[in-house]
Amino acid sequence: MPVKDYLDTNDFTKEELLDMVALSRAMKQCIKAGHYPQLLKNKTLGMVFQQVSTRTRLSFEAAMTDLGGHAQFYAPGTIQLGGHESIKDSARVMGRLVDILMARVDRHKDVVELARFSQAPVINGMSDYNHPTQELGDLCTMMEHLPAGKKIEDCKLVFVGDATQVCVSEMFIASKMGMEFVQYGPADYHIKPELLAIGKANAEASGGKVWVTEDRAAAMEGADFVYTDVWYGLYDAELSYDERMAIFYPTYQVTPELMALAAPHAKFMHCLPAARGEEVVDEVIDAPYSICWDEAENRKHSIRGLLVYFCPETRHDEQAAAEGKEALAAVLDRLGRKGGSHG
Amino acid sequence: MPVKDYLDTNDFTKEELLDMVALSRAMKQCIKAGHYPQLLKNKTLGMVFQQVSTRTRLSFEAAMTDLGGHAQFYAPGTIQLGGHESIKDSARVMGRLVDILMARVDRHKDVVELARFSQAPVINGMSDYNHPTQELGDLCTMMEHLPAGKKIEDCKLVFVGDATQVCVSEMFIASKMGMEFVQYGPADYHIKPELLAIGKANAEASGGKVWVTEDRAAAMEGADFVYTDVWYGLYDAELSYDERMAIFYPTYQVTPELMALAAPHAKFMHCLPAARGEEVVDEVIDAPYSICWDEAENRKHSIRGLLVYFCPETRHDEQAAAEGKEALAAVLDRLGRKGGSHG
Amino acid sequence: MPVKDYLDTNDFTKEELLDMVALSRAMKQCIKAGHYPQLLKNKTLGMVFQQVSTRTRLSFEAAMTDLGGHAQFYAPGTIQLGGHESIKDSARVMGRLVDILMARVDRHKDVVELARFSQAPVINGMSDYNHPTQELGDLCTMMEHLPAGKKIEDCKLVFVGDATQVCVSEMFIASKMGMEFVQYGPADYHIKPELLAIGKANAEASGGKVWVTEDRAAAMEGADFVYTDVWYGLYDAELSYDERMAIFYPTYQVTPELMALAAPHAKFMHCLPAARGEEVVDEVIDAPYSICWDEAENRKHSIRGLLVYFCPETRHDEQAAAEGKEALAAVLDRLGRKGGSHG
Repeated sequence: MPVKDYLDTNDFTKEELLDMVALSRAMKQCIKAGHYPQLLKNKTLGMVFQQVSTRTRLSFEAAMTDLGGHAQFYAPGTIQLGGHESIKDSARVMGRLVDILMARVDRHKDVVELARFSQAPVINGMSDYNHPTQELGDLCTMMEHLPAGKKIEDCKLVFVGDATQVCVSEMFIASKMGMEFVQYGPADYHIKPELLAIGKANAEASGGKVWVTEDRAAAMEGADFVYTDVWYGLYDAELSYDERMAIFYPTYQVTPELMALAAPHAKFMHCLPAARGEEVVDEVIDAPYSICWDEAENRKHSIRGLLVYFCPETRHDEQAAAEGKEALAAVLDRLGRKGGSHG
Repeated sequence: MPVKDYLDTNDFTKEELLDMVALSRAMKQCIKAGHYPQLLKNKTLGMVFQQVSTRTRLSFEAAMTDLGGHAQFYAPGTIQLGGHESIKDSARVMGRLVDILMARVDRHKDVVELARFSQAPVINGMSDYNHPTQELGDLCTMMEHLPAGKKIEDCKLVFVGDATQVCVSEMFIASKMGMEFVQYGPADYHIKPELLAIGKANAEASGGKVWVTEDRAAAMEGADFVYTDVWYGLYDAELSYDERMAIFYPTYQVTPELMALAAPHAKFMHCLPAARGEEVVDEVIDAPYSICWDEAENRKHSIRGLLVYFCPETRHDEQAAAEGKEALAAVLDRLGRKGGSHG
Repeated sequence: MPVKDYLDTNDFTKEELLDMVALSRAMKQCIKAGHYPQLLKNKTLGMVFQQVSTRTRLSFEAAMTDLGGHAQFYAPGTIQLGGHESIKDSARVMGRLVDILMARVDRHKDVVELARFSQAPVINGMSDYNHPTQELGDLCTMMEHLPAGKKIEDCKLVFVGDATQVCVSEMFIASKMGMEFVQYGPADYHIKPELLAIGKANAEASGGKVWVTEDRAAAMEGADFVYTDVWYGLYDAELSYDERMAIFYPTYQVTPELMALAAPHAKFMHCLPAARGEEVVDEVIDAPYSICWDEAENRKHSIRGLLVYFCPETRHDEQAAAEGKEALAAVLDRLGRKGGSHG
């Protein structure tokens, strides 16, 4: 049975993930050429945000409406989720009122709970564990910026800095694809062993490679994509400016000098928002080899693919519809209202 | 002249309320069968929320977009209502900028004021006095779950617990329909006399019956529907956990034992959110005879009916439209823009 | 090259501004007659609000959906703008995810920065410097309420009270049009010299006249439109009730007596919200000569014109679209999903 929810790319095969990419890229081409496929007509997405967001929120909402659907935005505090009502009960109700849900949550277990009890599919819009919509967008971006003559499985992705959930997510998707993934960061801030084990298992299956290191030259050698993220730390372990600079600066800052250790054609990536002057300098993020703006735009294109992949299709029952129309027309007539011709 | 606003079901006849139900049920059938009647095309709903909401907000927004319209969500604090600007002035302005309004307010007088000065119809999305969109959804739900061989006017609805505005609303709709309604709760928390009088007057006209009691066996005997709501109390008289448990627990908790005193086919209802372990136990709310999830879903279906019933129809003036199109085409041509063919 | 953004009416010629008005008025006529031109089909507006708003928010959102597009609402605090992320970086990202942006900001320099780095056009929804969407709406309103036999350039507009950004904006648009504009207010609260200079330069070019005065009779003599705004003061210089009453009351309150000094046909205008009993009394704002409710409604009509004027048209590439459709159909077929016929 197909997996109902998009919570973790590890729930899918490489082929399934590439189908999602193919959907995304085909619709991107259509829309850039002025054709908006109405594949989500009459569909409603509910967007649960426990944290503020720019890219994820704008992308999901635009993705739905581009394809003929609608998106409802629930800001932190504007609906009851895990407050007066258990997540289980909210999931049951919301899953009956909308066609598909996305949730950006503080705790991964909450999006798992939401998916378990919602009859509507749930897409994980980032948790403390992973960021799988970022993964798919980044995969699209890398496939659009492949080095000449290389396939995705031939590429090396270096993640520089802290083992954020985005770092872990990049490991997941790279290892699924059969790429080489290495985190170059301080030993105390390497990806945790239990998560690294998932990446290594993926790599074993796909023919890829996953490792972590403090060795600058070895990490950067031949890198096709150099990725970084902020140094704040996560939620319950946030680092002050002084703390994070003491840990990561200047060794793990992405500078032109660091980029020079990668392959000559290497591209710079960042999930954004960036703390310029911390994990990356202006000369890199604003360089021609920086593809982080394409990456941000591809959030929207890839989320379109995910929505079409996961949103249930409308079931049509012509007999029942005809009866419903007749009943509706009868009431509208009784009320002296128009209606039949609008249907 | 037809009543412009849906503030209180007591403003309508039984036949009018049943027309709203008939609209709701016909559209539910259409949409479940894959046909979305575009009866609210080009219409805009403004949703004013002075309190957080899950069911009401999701239902109104989905109901509008399902029928081809749009909904604007105004979270607490995001527009000016009764702050720098009087409700009267906001009502005048909002009533010119949208086609229909809904409002969930702290105080019933505020939604009445809004309706009085807004040229657009106003639907009451719950106040401290009543919850009439809940009423219509619950009426739909009861009609879908009628005991074999019974009509709605033959049924008995028992409300167990505190006289919340939902309790009062259930009395209103049940008594309008000619049902028997009884509140089974502690004497100090019975429906207030001035509200009970409305229910009794309704029952007199409809052939129904309305009463309040502490007599467990008499209340439950032959009940077709057993309804409950939370014990928090209302707004300015909120009860702490200890206070409410001392008042209502265990006598007024809906348990399998209490349900056993009702008719064998009795259904359990709850407006939600539920405080599991307080007014209801898991074995009841999760039982096959619990229809509270259908009830939540019917909020959306019945709100569609209300929106179609109350939203003014578009007035067409072919002559004026033709002149407008011509004027528009002239400007678009002057600006070198397309447009004529999009109209 | 045409100006990409609508930040300041001083960036446009009188003819360009009148084209925006003509678009607005033609679409208003179409829609009042039941025809909704779908000129913004598939377009998405992002609405950035750093402050609460009623008229601007409702108008922009309804304007987009009336014309077939969609609007995303970003309440204060719900996206990252100038927080973790620089405005420059947010502008780059948002400009790729939506088709057009509007922003209501605390500081004018922020909307300028947003426009500079966003590839999507930006409309200024009010700053501490000006309120140009109000200007266009007010111009539409004045043109609909011209005194018999007068053209807009023959009219006199008196602004009574404090030199708010709306006062300055009225000077801008009036002087662009060749009208006479006078601010009647206390000397310490007159329009600042550097802003007055812009109005005077406009008037020189257009044949209009701009002045400020404390002379009651001279200011009001022959006035066609009498405009006022609140006395709170701006952001970092807010005045308490006692302070503002001491400064402006009773001299600068718009009363029937003050209106009697204007032309007999004079109309009363207000951008709203109004502080009844401060800058205006009930007998004026509720009088038949008060056109402030039409003015509020015209916010929506004129914003439609601005959105059509500034939103980039969809570029069509039939060849690329055909290839995209073919690629999409191939994936949908592989997934066993419908789609081709929905496109």
